[in-house]
Amino acid sequence: MANLYGAIEAGGTKFVCAVGNHPDDLKNETNQTEFETTTPVETIGQAIAFFNEQEQRYGKPLSAIGIGSFGPIDLNHDSDTYGYITATPKPYWSNTDFVGMIKRDFDIPIGFDTDVNAAALGEQVWGAAQGLSDFIYLTIGTGIGGGGMINGKLMHGLIHPEMGHIFIPRAPTDDYEGKCPFHQYRCLEGLACGPAISRRWNVESATLLEATHEAWDLEAHYLALGLVNYICTLSPQRIIMGGGVMAQAQLLPLIHDKVKAMLNDYIQAAEIVDDIQHYIVLPGLSNRSGVIGALELARQQVV
Amino acid sequence: MANLYGAIEAGGTKFVCAVGNHPDDLKNETNQTEFETTTPVETIGQAIAFFNEQEQRYGKPLSAIGIGSFGPIDLNHDSDTYGYITATPKPYWSNTDFVGMIKRDFDIPIGFDTDVNAAALGEQVWGAAQGLSDFIYLTIGTGIGGGGMINGKLMHGLIHPEMGHIFIPRAPTDDYEGKCPFHQYRCLEGLACGPAISRRWNVESATLLEATHEAWDLEAHYLALGLVNYICTLSPQRIIMGGGVMAQAQLLPLIHDKVKAMLNDYIQAAEIVDDIQHYIVLPGLSNRSGVIGALELARQQVV
Repeated sequence: MANLYGAIEAGGTKFVCAVGNHPDDLKNETNQTEFETTTPVETIGQAIAFFNEQEQRYGKPLSAIGIGSFGPIDLNHDSDTYGYITATPKPYWSNTDFVGMIKRDFDIPIGFDTDVNAAALGEQVWGAAQGLSDFIYLTIGTGIGGGGMINGKLMHGLIHPEMGHIFIPRAPTDDYEGKCPFHQYRCLEGLACGPAISRRWNVESATLLEATHEAWDLEAHYLALGLVNYICTLSPQRIIMGGGVMAQAQLLPLIHDKVKAMLNDYIQAAEIVDDIQHYIVLPGLSNRSGVIGALELARQQVV
Repeated sequence: MANLYGAIEAGGTKFVCAVGNHPDDLKNETNQTEFETTTPVETIGQAIAFFNEQEQRYGKPLSAIGIGSFGPIDLNHDSDTYGYITATPKPYWSNTDFVGMIKRDFDIPIGFDTDVNAAALGEQVWGAAQGLSDFIYLTIGTGIGGGGMINGKLMHGLIHPEMGHIFIPRAPTDDYEGKCPFHQYRCLEGLACGPAISRRWNVESATLLEATHEAWDLEAHYLALGLVNYICTLSPQRIIMGGGVMAQAQLLPLIHDKVKAMLNDYIQAAEIVDDIQHYIVLPGLSNRSGVIGALELARQQVV
């Protein structure tokens, strides 16, 4: 009988948990749950309780658990704090031994990576990056983050990418000071995350702005600047853009046009010059890339 | 008896060629030559003539040749134009079948990569990146370029990185319009390559500017913005900075200070926070990274 895996997509706002063997198992509502991210003890406790219930329901133990987590996190297996959420500005979560807390109740293999790397993995195995060795997955939402694969493996390096915090030129017409408290030189996240849009245009939520509002042209401009920088730095075979802000259907075509205009044919690749619609795309797994990727992280611990 | 390898560091200004089995062989002046980059037929012809002479001198054939070339180049083995220099703005060199021209005279394995990837390889095997799986090598000179390894392999992806062409914010005090003809949004190369310095300050060569001239503080500012973007995007374990501009000894300490100030402790890695002098470094092979890397490219074709 097929192995049962546990998956946690740990976001700063909410956790999504699921069990199953295959992404199709997640179409069944009873195989998953989501809840607000409060404190580590409460929220990770809810995840553990969910996995316990599911083991009873299935009458079999989980074989492995995969976690895609908000960060920064420690991914260095030689480190004393491997598996921790480290110095996050999010209240209560700094220095949280995430893997250790799960492992206390489930002494099985635990896969652990960033939320965006988990989503990238999900897209590579089941979604819009199938067959690719070099691509990135971006989330544009409450924050901006990115992960992906280079040379066929997830990107880690010194710690892990923090793609949202690159510096980009401010548009001359924009006098909004940027939302990132760390970066006076105005990083992409500070200028283009969801809360930056609502603050700049003085609305409660960016979703209240009409599709024709000038906010979206400026948003596409900033995102395009970021994409050009990722393209020049990493040379990805494809870019996948997820997150709440990308639910605005007017954005992607604007981004396509602006990236092409900014690159100005400098990168002579047919994929960009002739077919940018298939080069910069929405996730193949819709908003399920993260949890499906976490399930895949679990599977890769044991197969 | 040890294999004999050929190496070509093909720059837009000059070619450096060498033969040998080990980097130490390149301490012998008779094992190498350099000449101006003119036309493909003349310049590649000079490289071929040099290799022929060396085979005679050694009384044995070359086992392989490695080429680190200026770009853009086609590195896709499945492409009809694999081994070509493609759409370069450099006169005479667009659409040059570089590997094919060498192969006509030397039907042996040919390693081919970007100049900066070759230099990165040299630094990884013999220089400042030994033991690292994730790092970048930058050259700051007539242009700005970058290569490196991620997950233990050289970066290629869709084509290859063009790291110099990322967009960065212009300093408020700087009204120089940028030297890159492609990028009106002001890319790093356009603002910070050697010729941009001399144009901005209206001198024949940047080397005429005193070490205390304000030009260097601005140069360090722009380079630091670029480095922050590479750090956030790639999470390298180390950054190596070569090229003619980095011969200005006053630059590196300024860059260290500015990168730390700009990151503002957002990336909590001891390597950056506590020891940036060993995180951002000059090449271990001085100005020989490229040709030694090309020799290593050759060796890796046959061992």
